[in-house]
Amino acid sequence: MGKKKVMLPASEVDLSTVKYQYEKIEAPHLTGFRLKLFVKLLEAPLVGALIISNLKKENKMVEILKNTVIPESPMFKPEFPPQEPETGVVLLEEGGNPIERVELALKCLPDYDPANNWNSDTYASFRYWKIRDYAYAYRSKLTTPSIVNAPAPLLISYDPEHIRKQAAVSTQRFEEGKPLSILDGIFVAIKDDIDCYPHPSNGGTTFFHKIRSVEEDAVSVSRLRSCGVILPGKANMHELGLGTTGNNPNYGTARNPHDPKRYTGGSSSGPAAIVSSGLCPAALGTDGGGSIRIPSSLCGVVGLKSTYGRTAMTGSLCDSGTVEIIGAITSTVEDAILVYAAILGSSIDDTTALKPSLPCLPDLSSHDSSSTLESIRLWRYTEWFNDVFSTDISEKCEDVLNLEIVIPEFREMCTAHLVSIGSESLSGLSPEVEDGNAEKFTCDTRINLALFRSFTASDYVAAQCLRRRIMYFHMEIFKNVDVIVTPTTGYDRLSC
Amino acid sequence: MGKKKVMLPASEVDLSTVKYQYEKIEAPHLTGFRLKLFVKLLEAPLVGALIISNLKKENKMVEILKNTVIPESPMFKPEFPPQEPETGVVLLEEGGNPIERVELALKCLPDYDPANNWNSDTYASFRYWKIRDYAYAYRSKLTTPSIVNAPAPLLISYDPEHIRKQAAVSTQRFEEGKPLSILDGIFVAIKDDIDCYPHPSNGGTTFFHKIRSVEEDAVSVSRLRSCGVILPGKANMHELGLGTTGNNPNYGTARNPHDPKRYTGGSSSGPAAIVSSGLCPAALGTDGGGSIRIPSSLCGVVGLKSTYGRTAMTGSLCDSGTVEIIGAITSTVEDAILVYAAILGSSIDDTTALKPSLPCLPDLSSHDSSSTLESIRLWRYTEWFNDVFSTDISEKCEDVLNLEIVIPEFREMCTAHLVSIGSESLSGLSPEVEDGNAEKFTCDTRINLALFRSFTASDYVAAQCLRRRIMYFHMEIFKNVDVIVTPTTGYDRLSC
Repeated sequence: MGKKKVMLPASEVDLSTVKYQYEKIEAPHLTGFRLKLFVKLLEAPLVGALIISNLKKENKMVEILKNTVIPESPMFKPEFPPQEPETGVVLLEEGGNPIERVELALKCLPDYDPANNWNSDTYASFRYWKIRDYAYAYRSKLTTPSIVNAPAPLLISYDPEHIRKQAAVSTQRFEEGKPLSILDGIFVAIKDDIDCYPHPSNGGTTFFHKIRSVEEDAVSVSRLRSCGVILPGKANMHELGLGTTGNNPNYGTARNPHDPKRYTGGSSSGPAAIVSSGLCPAALGTDGGGSIRIPSSLCGVVGLKSTYGRTAMTGSLCDSGTVEIIGAITSTVEDAILVYAAILGSSIDDTTALKPSLPCLPDLSSHDSSSTLESIRLWRYTEWFNDVFSTDISEKCEDVLNLEIVIPEFREMCTAHLVSIGSESLSGLSPEVEDGNAEKFTCDTRINLALFRSFTASDYVAAQCLRRRIMYFHMEIFKNVDVIVTPTTGYDRLSC
Repeated sequence: MGKKKVMLPASEVDLSTVKYQYEKIEAPHLTGFRLKLFVKLLEAPLVGALIISNLKKENKMVEILKNTVIPESPMFKPEFPPQEPETGVVLLEEGGNPIERVELALKCLPDYDPANNWNSDTYASFRYWKIRDYAYAYRSKLTTPSIVNAPAPLLISYDPEHIRKQAAVSTQRFEEGKPLSILDGIFVAIKDDIDCYPHPSNGGTTFFHKIRSVEEDAVSVSRLRSCGVILPGKANMHELGLGTTGNNPNYGTARNPHDPKRYTGGSSSGPAAIVSSGLCPAALGTDGGGSIRIPSSLCGVVGLKSTYGRTAMTGSLCDSGTVEIIGAITSTVEDAILVYAAILGSSIDDTTALKPSLPCLPDLSSHDSSSTLESIRLWRYTEWFNDVFSTDISEKCEDVLNLEIVIPEFREMCTAHLVSIGSESLSGLSPEVEDGNAEKFTCDTRINLALFRSFTASDYVAAQCLRRRIMYFHMEIFKNVDVIVTPTTGYDRLSC
């Protein structure tokens, strides 16, 4: 008796009394034989259930779902009530032609001055080529897509002949003076959980190509292709996206270009590595819990996790989730804008269910754009901000970020996220696991699946009730705040 | 190996090849000590899980969720793509004043001719008084709400003094010639899972009033009250709505007014009994899986389960579900229209998420209304129609219903429904069960909760993928069909 916790309705929570809860996270470090034995035990019918049940009780995380009265009704997918239109932005049509959207996005960017990039230093030291650098070089006959052709070695599925053909067709278009868009001839690597014909989509596993054939591009990839993008192949990832290190025993673990002894972060490890290494100006990743943001941050490049529903997930392995998006990893913000403009557009299902407002881009073209940027309010939640392994970054940011917010129910938010993404992943995988493929996954994935299997349907529904609360708190916060700044990960260095 | 079943995308299913699957349903008949022992075993940690797991394997119903590849993404709440506007209907504003909506509904009805009802036979034999019969009698001073005052004995929570006061205020309004609406002075009983201040909402349990206080009316009840309706109290139900017989050991089982040896059906057993007995012209029930339709059918009255989201569920025990509505049980279709007009209006959450089209009523007032009704196309799925305990009814309907449809994936539809409603019910109850209240529920409810506890989160998500398929099939069918006619239940007589 007396375990029950009753939450106040979200609208009655007094934010001034919210306390940040520091959590000590303990995870056993298992490798080799001991790891394999642990996985076997976890997967055994009764013993496994007992181990998981004990781990969850110690951790208390998922247990709170069972004994908490959550006054909100479930919100299964993010809902967006009508909002005030933003200023200083350009609206984009979702249903339109990707080429026209990219054209519009280009007009949002500040002028491109070749003199800044093309001088005697150009070839002297390493620098990231932006999309507009390639575009200028192609149009000025400084180079051609066929000459640039090179990024294959870091990919886990590629065909040099196929890449050469795409480059030749693009080169031909430039020779005829008819490039399709600013993205023509731009190399964009695709994460292994997004369909890019004729490559298989293995999601970092060894066997998905045997159970799921790829007949065409994912919607977002086909939009890139229609803009003239060259698609060299598939980039490595954490198996099925179920981890944030990028550790992948099947294809080898992507190394951080800034220090090969370190992880890239994940799950979009390959896309971040290939952009960070300068071999491709852009790559597509997927993000449902940091899978674009974490590796982009650890590799020192730009990653955009857009609002849920902005990108059609059709043709990706995570097309049934309620948290994942497909997004760009690039070396600069302007390239993220260009790729985002090309790939965006909700699926029909999401347009029906979410009826999202029109997507928009910041207008950085005019002389007023600096004042638009200056008016953006950056805030942080200090205690969360400083709750990291090393405070190197957080201390440096202290002077810049002096606007303070508080976000309630962090622990609950993490639980709701884990239960949602885990249950949705497992739902798609269950038929394969039941069909005798369970042992083909890596130990890492099998441990995660065992945990996900322990989530009950009622946990899932309770997690969606939490989602409504959390959305409410964030809607309230974003009435006054434009950006919440955080260190992307709690850890700042991870050795492979 | 080889357990996996891969479904075709719903849009590619060839309906002409669909076969109806007859299912033999076996359920053990347990009572008394053996039933109690069975419940204890079910609730024991490991034994219970084993029993449930075996029952589910034999039944195969929920197991299909684990080994079926469902190509659709989940649809967590019914989604309604834009549809052609209907003809012969009157649109209603959702946000408006209930009194105005009832006024508009009244205009949709055929003329009321007192001569048809008020003659020498009026008091000679039993007949149901319609709302407009009461309205006419009140306005013609034939009677007053204070004189009518009588329906209390069949209710499980009522206060004679409180009823007398409401009746007196209504009578006063008639004396002053200022009734609020056609519903003024009409007695409407409220099912025990819908808040009706100052009564507790026990949901048919013995203890919910201790853990959940009622501070105000449910939204739908407050709309009735604003129209002048008299609310005599709370009507009995199957505990928590988790059954369709109406069997309730806590308050006694409502008896069918047409034969006291038979069940009313449930879960809205009390509301159907009180309307069927002629004591109230209308009652409110809730329906997520037949809970209005079944008892209305078995008691020979009218029950309306509207489209999901048409009625605000705020202030009901099932306010977090994705299938339940609040609806009217009445003795005639015209009364169902009047009560529906009063209570309708989505919650803000549903308006945001579902963005439903405007509700509408059939216009039966004009001389053309008979042709509107004649143009309605009634169809049946013969094999389903005849798959009942006794074919008395289905045979009689054979001549009238000769338009034939086929609905695919029945078994899957039942599974998706059971997993959805069960998981959502359990989610709301978990904190109470964890808090030591488990043994306060009836055996019936405890067996259901044990089953619901075995549903995994991934089952739940898979059930929502099935929902998208099922919605697709029904959308396709309703392009050609107005009404699918079925016997409401497979059984036609059930003894208490």
